[in-house]
Amino acid sequence: MAINTTHKPQDSPELPNPDRRSYKVVFQPSGRSGQVEEGVTLLEAARHLGAGIESICGGQETCAKCQVIIEDGTFPKENIKSSTSNVTRAGDHECALAQRRNLPEGVRLACAARVRGNLLVSVPEIAQAQKQVVRKAATERILTVDPIIRLYFIKLAPPQLGDRSDEERVLASLKERFGLEDLVFEYDALLALPAALKTGQGKITLTVWNSAAILRVQPNFHDRPLGLAVDIGTTTLAAYLCDLRTGALLATTSSMNPQVTYGDDIMSRISYAVETPGGREQLHRSVIHGITDLGIQAAKEAGATAEDIVDCVLVGNSVMHHLALNIDPASLGHLPFIPAAGSPLDLRAADLGLGFNPAARVHFLPLEAGYVGADNVAVILAEEPHLQDEIMLIVDVGTNGEILLGSRQRLLCTSSPTGPAFEGAQITHGMRAAPGAIERVRVDPHTLAVRFKVIGSDDWSDSLPPEKVGARGICGSGILEAVSELFTAGVIMPTGRYNPDCTSPNLVRSANGQLAYVLAPAEQTITSQAILLTQSDIRAVQLAKGALFTGAQFLMKELGVEKVDRMVLTGAFGSLLDRQRAMTIGMIPDCDLDKVLAVGNAAGDGARIALLNKAKRIEAAQVAVWTEHLITPLEGEFQQRFVAALSIPHATERFLHIEALHNGSPPS
Amino acid sequence: MAINTTHKPQDSPELPNPDRRSYKVVFQPSGRSGQVEEGVTLLEAARHLGAGIESICGGQETCAKCQVIIEDGTFPKENIKSSTSNVTRAGDHECALAQRRNLPEGVRLACAARVRGNLLVSVPEIAQAQKQVVRKAATERILTVDPIIRLYFIKLAPPQLGDRSDEERVLASLKERFGLEDLVFEYDALLALPAALKTGQGKITLTVWNSAAILRVQPNFHDRPLGLAVDIGTTTLAAYLCDLRTGALLATTSSMNPQVTYGDDIMSRISYAVETPGGREQLHRSVIHGITDLGIQAAKEAGATAEDIVDCVLVGNSVMHHLALNIDPASLGHLPFIPAAGSPLDLRAADLGLGFNPAARVHFLPLEAGYVGADNVAVILAEEPHLQDEIMLIVDVGTNGEILLGSRQRLLCTSSPTGPAFEGAQITHGMRAAPGAIERVRVDPHTLAVRFKVIGSDDWSDSLPPEKVGARGICGSGILEAVSELFTAGVIMPTGRYNPDCTSPNLVRSANGQLAYVLAPAEQTITSQAILLTQSDIRAVQLAKGALFTGAQFLMKELGVEKVDRMVLTGAFGSLLDRQRAMTIGMIPDCDLDKVLAVGNAAGDGARIALLNKAKRIEAAQVAVWTEHLITPLEGEFQQRFVAALSIPHATERFLHIEALHNGSPPS
Repeated sequence: MAINTTHKPQDSPELPNPDRRSYKVVFQPSGRSGQVEEGVTLLEAARHLGAGIESICGGQETCAKCQVIIEDGTFPKENIKSSTSNVTRAGDHECALAQRRNLPEGVRLACAARVRGNLLVSVPEIAQAQKQVVRKAATERILTVDPIIRLYFIKLAPPQLGDRSDEERVLASLKERFGLEDLVFEYDALLALPAALKTGQGKITLTVWNSAAILRVQPNFHDRPLGLAVDIGTTTLAAYLCDLRTGALLATTSSMNPQVTYGDDIMSRISYAVETPGGREQLHRSVIHGITDLGIQAAKEAGATAEDIVDCVLVGNSVMHHLALNIDPASLGHLPFIPAAGSPLDLRAADLGLGFNPAARVHFLPLEAGYVGADNVAVILAEEPHLQDEIMLIVDVGTNGEILLGSRQRLLCTSSPTGPAFEGAQITHGMRAAPGAIERVRVDPHTLAVRFKVIGSDDWSDSLPPEKVGARGICGSGILEAVSELFTAGVIMPTGRYNPDCTSPNLVRSANGQLAYVLAPAEQTITSQAILLTQSDIRAVQLAKGALFTGAQFLMKELGVEKVDRMVLTGAFGSLLDRQRAMTIGMIPDCDLDKVLAVGNAAGDGARIALLNKAKRIEAAQVAVWTEHLITPLEGEFQQRFVAALSIPHATERFLHIEALHNGSPPS
Repeated sequence: MAINTTHKPQDSPELPNPDRRSYKVVFQPSGRSGQVEEGVTLLEAARHLGAGIESICGGQETCAKCQVIIEDGTFPKENIKSSTSNVTRAGDHECALAQRRNLPEGVRLACAARVRGNLLVSVPEIAQAQKQVVRKAATERILTVDPIIRLYFIKLAPPQLGDRSDEERVLASLKERFGLEDLVFEYDALLALPAALKTGQGKITLTVWNSAAILRVQPNFHDRPLGLAVDIGTTTLAAYLCDLRTGALLATTSSMNPQVTYGDDIMSRISYAVETPGGREQLHRSVIHGITDLGIQAAKEAGATAEDIVDCVLVGNSVMHHLALNIDPASLGHLPFIPAAGSPLDLRAADLGLGFNPAARVHFLPLEAGYVGADNVAVILAEEPHLQDEIMLIVDVGTNGEILLGSRQRLLCTSSPTGPAFEGAQITHGMRAAPGAIERVRVDPHTLAVRFKVIGSDDWSDSLPPEKVGARGICGSGILEAVSELFTAGVIMPTGRYNPDCTSPNLVRSANGQLAYVLAPAEQTITSQAILLTQSDIRAVQLAKGALFTGAQFLMKELGVEKVDRMVLTGAFGSLLDRQRAMTIGMIPDCDLDKVLAVGNAAGDGARIALLNKAKRIEAAQVAVWTEHLITPLEGEFQQRFVAALSIPHATERFLHIEALHNGSPPS
């Protein structure tokens, strides 16, 4: 393509004058401008001037992506001969396509419109080559959609005697039309080429990874490549299906990690993998199966099939990472806790057994170190502590909790064995954040009456007839709120024990003689069984929040800070954790409440960022090495701190003393 | 590593002087020389000066490949303090290793010997980084062994708390020791890493492809990566197993192409693939199975297993290429005969189902065009017409014959449907070149007595008692000689018909009334059945040689030459074709006999070249596009020429007249 040089436009009967002039063309909103020779298409002009306009078909008036709006009144219309417009009129083909695709009035296709005078051209958001999506993090941020996978549409003319092979002619066309060089066909795509060319009568859409490998060949025109970002939690799997072209989030699905059958936490998973013959393979297959199911379900919701999923980003802690890859996690089970593998990885879905497009790429974000895995790298991508001047504390609440502390100067991380309490596991009536789960709890400090909200309902339980409440169990956010509210109301003592002096009728003695609080009576539940918060449940919450608090304290001591500027609470829950109540129970250090933010699943958000922007994958690899990993000590000062952190909200000599009086022994 | 700068040698107690001097070191036979700082190892010095010395372990006194001979008498020994040598003495470890590996007296390891004075160092052939092998082609040529796959040995120290993952430490070690950057682990290799590190106690050997991908991880030290070059002929498979490090040919195996069950020639294979449900898959699997068997057999002969085969180069005509890849060959079955794919390809053995190391790379050389396939590209690599000033004619005799004509100026190719006669197929008692096959035939022009030689015997049949002859059938070279000898003796007429006036008792009438010549009576055969050459067999030879002759004539006309400077006869036979007799029957144009050379399987030789030298793969890709493909016309002048070329040696009006007299019709 030549601008200002020797360009010879074909199919441009409106340009009878052979010695062509050039005109000024300005593209908005990029502001890119320059002199463009008469007869050049706006798509070519935009490419030359660096104003990115999207085009899947490379200018063949097929994809209708390169939409522009001509603003031709702002420049003097000089040298226009017979026409009143500075741009060629739309031909029949363009008009028909515009009608078929329902394009708004006044929208032109840049590949069809040719320059005839000075022009001001607007490129609407929808047609910009690098789209932007707004995403929520601790602060709202803009993400440029620049995926590693793109679609290209070509039309191959019927072969003539002496032509090179179809495959070579496809490569030549991609080079000529899109400037793609050194491309190779993946084997599966090559096998599919003859049939696709036949079915599409020479028209095919190619799915290209990283401008390097052709993963998929489909007959005819396609414009929706799908990608799946997956956060593999120890307890919960969360998947996000995106349109890789627009960046749109099409569906979100989640499930229990099927591996929970083989152990609740990472240590028990390692044991199962290492000690049970075939155990590692079993764990591997179960999580791959779980991810496949989420992808199939999400694709279905988006009106597509799992075959359309051509890219996938996986994150998870080091043990989840190893098991998803089927790598022996034995070395993570003992000192010095060294992962077998940690670099970013690009595999094929078929290698892992994922039921997506077999040629789909699967990208694993890198691990940091020890247990601090790719999920934490994803949290960094999402919350960007490494780009901030302020000191951020990020607490990722999961079965294996991870804590980040720092700024662009220095970033520390550690992991803490939180246990699955906040994901609703190992809790008497615990459940995943799914419809029917109690997610909000309020206790009246005077009457000690309980009201709650379940996922799937907009109403509090006390405003509904009992049979309409439909509670099924309690999820992590509900458990946190229940403990916090009961503590504030004096039902739970700072030691975590139920107050034996409490006279609420809701405080009952369960079958094993333990005290338990009735959150939902049988008539409000679907199971017709009361939902209780037992003394053991409270102890599980105490252990979890104590571990997180101690980890945060440890990092703050290492960084030499006594206060943080901002705090972010995240986790793979359905609903957000209540930051105020998290502070009430002492899960996080004290901080001005307006500096604390609860976000959704930052790890999933980071996985989605890596899915939509290839440069973020490189950033992830760099930050994974740069972040300093520390192991929270398990003895000495921090053992004491941990014991102290079990109390609600914080241990003081007084609380420990009360506990000892009630119990005859210190809490352990 | 620093030479002349800041190198600080470790473990060099013999160097007490901190302000080190530098000395002149000369390496032979490369002649590379320069100033080297005292205390630097000869391996480091050689690397810095560009004198390639092999090292698999990167200087850890393990592989014992970096053997050098010190010639220290040729320089003045200045500045030597206490020692009488210009090089440090061998330590205990080096001595023990030298003894274990049986190194000759006086040989030192370059990684252990450090500079203490001026030195002249010889690098024996065995230790040169780029070895050279002499190979036979039309002329003897030297091939530099520079394979795309190399082995690297490292020792990984036990991990410490806070270390990166094992995989990252392996990559760091490869970078530090061998300068390998941007390496990635293939998935299989990554899965094997934990067990290999455990078994080898940190000592592992890595198989690396193209300095880019780690294919295999083995515990402990290994130094024999195997590669297999395979020529997939329509009728015959030929495999060559090589040591990729030394270039040595370790074993040669061959078999019938198992696809012959589904059709004798490429057109019938295409039909079967296209028309039979599951036919393509069947053909694919059968040839992959055949190649696997050859690899297993060759590895066994070399005292290894197929798991050790880590690289493979496949060549074959376009149809064999497509079927080996499982690509639909339909477009090769009709005009304009366009292959579906033709670029060079790199796949994994597991993708194709080849039973070698699953991560083994499989490289397909590129196709030229139409039927002229990767086998012909391999022939070009072997015979190098594109590098010659002389005009070469290369006739590759196979079921699908291929002909090359040209020089560095211009190179033409065409294919000719020779049929399988010269591979012993479609011949009454034909067989593959294997033990028991008649490969040489002589007919006494006076007595018309026949004598022959079978593969596996050094003696002519007439010097052995009949029961010791052990003939089983006749292979391509034997068939060619039989026809030529019988023609010279007047038994076969120029038309190809048996001379009805011939009175030899060997000329018998077979069951179907046809005349046939008894080459071996029943008592000389293992089958106790006489081996005959029937009239149909002669006709098959005529059609084959006529096709080749016409193709050569056609290219000569296109290139505008009436004579060629050199001629090469090649094919995947066990024994060489007799060039004189090939000319006698008119298979090739007239040429001075000393300008004609029969070589072995040039396609197989070219495949082996691409296996051993990675740059040759790039050359192949270039030459495949540069070579001009022509389709031998099937009508008009060349139809007449073909009919004429059926006669022995060449048609003349007189011969055609005789034929007409005998037959009542012209030959067809």
